Amino acid sequence: MAALQFTLQHQDAGSKARAGRIVTDHGEIQTPIFMPVGTVGSVKAVSQLQLEAEVKAQIILGNTYHLYLRPGLEILEAAGGLHRFNGWQRPILTDSGGYQVFSLAGTRKIREEGVTFQSHIDGSKHLFSPEYVMDIQRVIGGDIIMAFDECPPGGSEYAYARNSMEMTHRWLDRCLTRFNSTEDKYGYTQNLFPIVQGGTFKDLRQQSCEFISSKEATGNAIGGLSVGEPEPVMYEICEWCCDHLPAQKPRYLMGVGTPWNILECISMGIDMFDCVMPTRNGRNAMLFTTKGVINIDNKKWEKDFSPIDDGLECHTSNYYSKAYLRHLMKSKEILGLSIASIHNLAFYLWLVTEARKHIIAGDFASWKREQVEVLKTRL
Amino acid sequence: MAALQFTLQHQDAGSKARAGRIVTDHGEIQTPIFMPVGTVGSVKAVSQLQLEAEVKAQIILGNTYHLYLRPGLEILEAAGGLHRFNGWQRPILTDSGGYQVFSLAGTRKIREEGVTFQSHIDGSKHLFSPEYVMDIQRVIGGDIIMAFDECPPGGSEYAYARNSMEMTHRWLDRCLTRFNSTEDKYGYTQNLFPIVQGGTFKDLRQQSCEFISSKEATGNAIGGLSVGEPEPVMYEICEWCCDHLPAQKPRYLMGVGTPWNILECISMGIDMFDCVMPTRNGRNAMLFTTKGVINIDNKKWEKDFSPIDDGLECHTSNYYSKAYLRHLMKSKEILGLSIASIHNLAFYLWLVTEARKHIIAGDFASWKREQVEVLKTRL
Repeated sequence: MAALQFTLQHQDAGSKARAGRIVTDHGEIQTPIFMPVGTVGSVKAVSQLQLEAEVKAQIILGNTYHLYLRPGLEILEAAGGLHRFNGWQRPILTDSGGYQVFSLAGTRKIREEGVTFQSHIDGSKHLFSPEYVMDIQRVIGGDIIMAFDECPPGGSEYAYARNSMEMTHRWLDRCLTRFNSTEDKYGYTQNLFPIVQGGTFKDLRQQSCEFISSKEATGNAIGGLSVGEPEPVMYEICEWCCDHLPAQKPRYLMGVGTPWNILECISMGIDMFDCVMPTRNGRNAMLFTTKGVINIDNKKWEKDFSPIDDGLECHTSNYYSKAYLRHLMKSKEILGLSIASIHNLAFYLWLVTEARKHIIAGDFASWKREQVEVLKTRL
Repeated sequence: MAALQFTLQHQDAGSKARAGRIVTDHGEIQTPIFMPVGTVGSVKAVSQLQLEAEVKAQIILGNTYHLYLRPGLEILEAAGGLHRFNGWQRPILTDSGGYQVFSLAGTRKIREEGVTFQSHIDGSKHLFSPEYVMDIQRVIGGDIIMAFDECPPGGSEYAYARNSMEMTHRWLDRCLTRFNSTEDKYGYTQNLFPIVQGGTFKDLRQQSCEFISSKEATGNAIGGLSVGEPEPVMYEICEWCCDHLPAQKPRYLMGVGTPWNILECISMGIDMFDCVMPTRNGRNAMLFTTKGVINIDNKKWEKDFSPIDDGLECHTSNYYSKAYLRHLMKSKEILGLSIASIHNLAFYLWLVTEARKHIIAGDFASWKREQVEVLKTRL
């Protein structure tokens, strides 16, 4: 059992895109990669078999906030960790819970010690400190676990962003101290990724990248983007961070984004992505396809009996027609939510796999330019 | 393309149970059989691939009332029928819509001509006549379609039951006239099953069986049971009807029931069953297993990491633990609804397959006695 290893396999000549391989104790991940979000230990409306066989997911996320509240640590520990609890035997990454508790505006209080918040389920009060979040993630048992950071809102002022970043750095040191003084619970190695913050300010982001890099973690994450700032600013800060993070470690951009966001950020040197967009938008009738974006609620699909997307190898995307999926969504059938979620996730995995192929083939930049236009098309 | 054929393969020595084979243009069905209910063209929360690979369904139901309202006949006809619309290539049976429109108490009116009712979706007014229900089912394209009958409530008086039965018989003649003067729309043969009514009165039921049998349909159904009458009465009338319906035709008991109901009725000579119980109860946390009944919401399963049911060959029942399924149901995750539905349906299909094996092996009666006790156990 060994710490996460990252091998850079190819670097694109026309951009900063890279293809790599991450090795964890639960198996390999080909990068760039998209990670489906499994909030409470289930990727919403998608079974583990469907994740493997149809979506072809290589790694999934779990949300510390949700798992901590339900099923709770006692059950997760009794199960032997999340992999055993939900049956997913490939790698798992857990977030720190920070993002979720900050979203509970009104019921949470941020202090140096940590964050106090009220459960959205029963109103009970809890404290997440950097130390406790390490303990929780030890129990959940993700292969990759995240540092406890503060994520300031999109339009934050310089002073707020700086203070917040500085606290995030102090919290990182506390996370590392706790992480390094505790052991892997289930025999395989857990890896702690620190998170760059600093809002939309390049000097802060650079400072944060340098601080984070100095920890020599097995991978590094960029947080606090796609939280309300304009898209060009998101791209500018993302590229800036990539340029200031070590090349020999995987770079994970948290919570981003649309298919075109993902292609643009791959071209800047991002290796890992997660986002609820494919599942959440899928449940709301928005489909991403190899030919463009579809609102499957639209009457124009009523008699379109062609497959949802014949550009993918996914069984679900080929088996079901647009007209049938529209009917299911209109009828509020659960199967409609599953089909849309599986398809959108399969599309996201197809997207990063294609990106990887083109990085290796050496024509990523031109392929990306074409694809961004196609994928944004409203069908 | 040929009309439905039924071959009686084995008759149990210790009971009236039979094993048989139904051949339709969409394939074979081994009897006794349970048919999952696919209300609006989707078995709720279960994909077609899961129905084939995990549930091992041989035939599914569609509901005429629901399909008529949504997606509607224009779309179903443009698709080329329900098989092409939903991708299910094995046999389909459609009900007549009668049961659903009678359930719309207050908004429907029953007359000799037919039944007027208001859509539960938009309040629009519609008339289902015996002729129109044949036309609708021609468009939907089930391999087996059902006559339009009136199903009186469980505790109906003799006079009501007699008048209702007589109208059902007149309606059957109108159904047959229309059915015989119209053609299969999609190249394969559709079969019309008439329905025995007569409430809880043996003389009426006998009269109805004789009338229905005289039509020499390829199969016969028993309606108006499990609609509020006591269980012993249901069994008594079911057996009485079996005894008065031809042995060389499949007998379909509509809308029944629990696992033990199914075993008892198989022992009386029923060949085909349908019921929403496995899916509806599954969505409400009630699981039927080879070891008994489980309320998966119960705290006792919180740390039970054993498979949902290792007595089945179904992947889902073996892959997921009771504790994980409980967590998903508590968290109102869609995946929980899917797992419970797939498991319960796989259990129902296992049950009829086992019954068939024991009929062929010649020990059905003793096996049934043991099983009824086991299956009723509250775990």
